[in-house]
Amino acid sequence: MGDGKIIVGLDAMGGDFAPIEPVLGGYAFAKENPDIEVVLIGRQEEISAVLPSELPNLRIHHASEVVAMDDPPALSVRKKKDSSISVGAELLKRGEISAFVSAGNTGAVVAATTLKVRLLPGIERPGLAVVFPTVKGTPVVIIDVGANIDTKPVHLLQYALMSTVYCKLMWEGVENPRVGLLNIGEEETKGTGVYKEAAGLLKSANLNFVGNVEGKDIFKGLADIVVMDGFVGNVVLKVSEGAADAVITMLKKEIYGSSWWTKLGAMLFLLPAYKNLKKKIDYSEYGGALLLGVNGVCVIGHGRSNARAIKNAVNVAVNEIKRNVNEKILEKLKEVNP
Amino acid sequence: MGDGKIIVGLDAMGGDFAPIEPVLGGYAFAKENPDIEVVLIGRQEEISAVLPSELPNLRIHHASEVVAMDDPPALSVRKKKDSSISVGAELLKRGEISAFVSAGNTGAVVAATTLKVRLLPGIERPGLAVVFPTVKGTPVVIIDVGANIDTKPVHLLQYALMSTVYCKLMWEGVENPRVGLLNIGEEETKGTGVYKEAAGLLKSANLNFVGNVEGKDIFKGLADIVVMDGFVGNVVLKVSEGAADAVITMLKKEIYGSSWWTKLGAMLFLLPAYKNLKKKIDYSEYGGALLLGVNGVCVIGHGRSNARAIKNAVNVAVNEIKRNVNEKILEKLKEVNP
Repeated sequence: MGDGKIIVGLDAMGGDFAPIEPVLGGYAFAKENPDIEVVLIGRQEEISAVLPSELPNLRIHHASEVVAMDDPPALSVRKKKDSSISVGAELLKRGEISAFVSAGNTGAVVAATTLKVRLLPGIERPGLAVVFPTVKGTPVVIIDVGANIDTKPVHLLQYALMSTVYCKLMWEGVENPRVGLLNIGEEETKGTGVYKEAAGLLKSANLNFVGNVEGKDIFKGLADIVVMDGFVGNVVLKVSEGAADAVITMLKKEIYGSSWWTKLGAMLFLLPAYKNLKKKIDYSEYGGALLLGVNGVCVIGHGRSNARAIKNAVNVAVNEIKRNVNEKILEKLKEVNP
Repeated sequence: MGDGKIIVGLDAMGGDFAPIEPVLGGYAFAKENPDIEVVLIGRQEEISAVLPSELPNLRIHHASEVVAMDDPPALSVRKKKDSSISVGAELLKRGEISAFVSAGNTGAVVAATTLKVRLLPGIERPGLAVVFPTVKGTPVVIIDVGANIDTKPVHLLQYALMSTVYCKLMWEGVENPRVGLLNIGEEETKGTGVYKEAAGLLKSANLNFVGNVEGKDIFKGLADIVVMDGFVGNVVLKVSEGAADAVITMLKKEIYGSSWWTKLGAMLFLLPAYKNLKKKIDYSEYGGALLLGVNGVCVIGHGRSNARAIKNAVNVAVNEIKRNVNEKILEKLKEVNP
């Protein structure tokens, strides 16, 4: 990478629709971005079978094993040494790729990159950050959505520091990102011991801490970053998805259960609005979650990622590399703990 | 209560719109149900000022103090001995009312009833249960949404036992309610120690335990009951509300940002479907959350309750009394721990 060329390693075997969707997503990205190299990691034969054609900036790196979506993470890293995830983490460690993107087993990706690539000095646990849309039109970063479920207050502080740097770099106009702490009430007396202690740490840190944020306010855009532990964050991510889906499904049911002219009207008038909305809230438009804290760029896609989502996930990784997010995080950490 | 007459105590000072909405809700209920007595608990003068007229089955029980929505719960119970919440709990303890309904400070209601009315023998912590709609059309009970945030595995088991009894009594056709444990994956290896241990307890209990349920599946109707700790449950409750609101708001924005004929079309065709949907997912239709485990009937309404929501909350309490939920829970507990 001495010439500064960006090389993205993509787990071709990760996700519910692997290898087809990851391969097609990686192919689409490579075709549109000839200056960036894409390395498809996984079973050579299976990848070749679905690859539409050869491209000068696309190659395959063979890895014989596959981590299943329900494999126990730590064990899979130890046992399946030649899995696409283990190999991807190894290539990232050796600097042979500038970023690793996977829609595979989240726990395994976290474990493999944490073990091989290690964490940024000063960071004790990685945090998985997703970007949600808000009704204000601004994005909100939710961290951690499940990289670490044994969360201590200092981890929450570190998530806040890393996300602050990330936000500032990624969105123009967000000079001083507002950091909120998820809690079950706005008052400081609320929550478990971990959350109460975290509030104290966030308050005394050099951050734009705006206090507790309740679940109902995440999507209102009251904060640019909402920090929480990985168990709660994973639930938040999935409940949001489930509640949004349920509302849309129920609305459709109401429409299809009504008169034919309502159905016709809804088709004509509602469909365009609905399509625009879907584009805004669809995870595939956001591409992937960023694994902050790892000493290398790693993006984890949704298990149900289609080619479009994979392409966007690769794009997220490339943007992170270009903006030097990790370097800036290290500067921020030095500023906090000189 | 020797003659079996149902008397419901209603906190007239609880909620964001007190005393107006609670008083109007209690009044509406009393008017429609002349065989049930409603006791409005709170400041006599303030209640009288908004009460539309006298009714034979409606009376005021004066309580001079008010617990604010952000008062620290335990402290408020100790300090404000003449608050509507403390007095309500006291009346329930003495058997002067058959149920207590409040849209006030949830923590204070939990603390006051737990301290005064005590818990059912064998129950270590109360659990707050809400009923959500699912896309299948069946309801799902979510417990605990915030009565107890210091949750042990055995509390989760007790929530499951109580909710199973509740479900069977409340919904015909649900003979053997399916109990799910909220978790971040379907596999048994997932989650924190508390959740892993709870899964073991639920498995060996005499329950229809269907395993882990992820956040995205709550609204799919895969389980009739989903058990979780009070911190996570409160987040689930509020995130669902927030996500549903956000989707609706974003859809409206798309519609209002489009051409005039789309707007007109949406008004004509979408509005009826939307109104039906709103009725299904609106908390005010469900009325309130049931505080299971307390040795008396207690229903807690949403802080933003309007008169309609209060009326429905009173109705929830009356149904619970009529169906002898607590007595049946005691029978179930004896069956489990003879």
